[in-house]
Amino acid sequence: MSLRIALLIPLTIGFAATAVAQMKPDVVIEYRRSVMTMVGWNFGPMGAMVKGKIPFDAKEFAKHAERIEFLAPQALEGFAKGSDKGAETDAKPDIWTNFDDFKSKLNDLIEQSKTMSEVAKGGDEAKMKEQFKKLGGTCKACHDKYRAEMHH
Amino acid sequence: MSLRIALLIPLTIGFAATAVAQMKPDVVIEYRRSVMTMVGWNFGPMGAMVKGKIPFDAKEFAKHAERIEFLAPQALEGFAKGSDKGAETDAKPDIWTNFDDFKSKLNDLIEQSKTMSEVAKGGDEAKMKEQFKKLGGTCKACHDKYRAEMHH
Repeated sequence: MSLRIALLIPLTIGFAATAVAQMKPDVVIEYRRSVMTMVGWNFGPMGAMVKGKIPFDAKEFAKHAERIEFLAPQALEGFAKGSDKGAETDAKPDIWTNFDDFKSKLNDLIEQSKTMSEVAKGGDEAKMKEQFKKLGGTCKACHDKYRAEMHH
Repeated sequence: MSLRIALLIPLTIGFAATAVAQMKPDVVIEYRRSVMTMVGWNFGPMGAMVKGKIPFDAKEFAKHAERIEFLAPQALEGFAKGSDKGAETDAKPDIWTNFDDFKSKLNDLIEQSKTMSEVAKGGDEAKMKEQFKKLGGTCKACHDKYRAEMHH
């Protein structure tokens, strides 16, 4: 392991440090945008079903829920220290000054997405819709505090 | 279901048609780029381990392998018909004129990523490295034929 990587490890956040420490900020930013895009891609049709904009399809809903459950724990790596700038980003600098709070909000997403996926496997439409609101609440809580106005 | 959505369904490719049919091409393109970015993010450290650029860590390797296994089947939605233009993209128009061939190459990725994840769970470093080459081969086969020169 090179000295440069070894020195950077303390700046990373408790995962594959050797690999991520080598990433440039713009690459980390592109990654986190990608995680959010994929979460949103799956969240969208669930929301459309809940709002009755498209027919409710429990199987499709559960598929999207499972994908979000799997994606959510992959977001944290996208907020590695040092990635507050380096490319266009909606992530507010407050993320890194309040990292424990940010991480706790991300954990809320992880937990509620697990529950969402479990509930969706049960197939009870009313329960699914109820849990979907809790899931959406975790997105909103974090975005309200830590996401700047969308640029796009 | 609106008439517009109903008419668009035949143009989509065998999944949550109602939802994706409503997506604008630029949204689909951003989604597929996101899938590829996430796959690449996970593929990178695996490659670095295989090449000895970072220490081999079977557990980390398996984590990344499992993520690619889960991401790979999510790529197809990103190549919905009509998304050949609408935003900057490296996807060649040939994808949609040879869609069966493209889909078969994408299936190779899905299959090899499944095998990669299984092999990685076994923890045998030599087998993992061997299977990693097969996995990388499926990326290359598709990129050589269907990806334009990278713009970035």
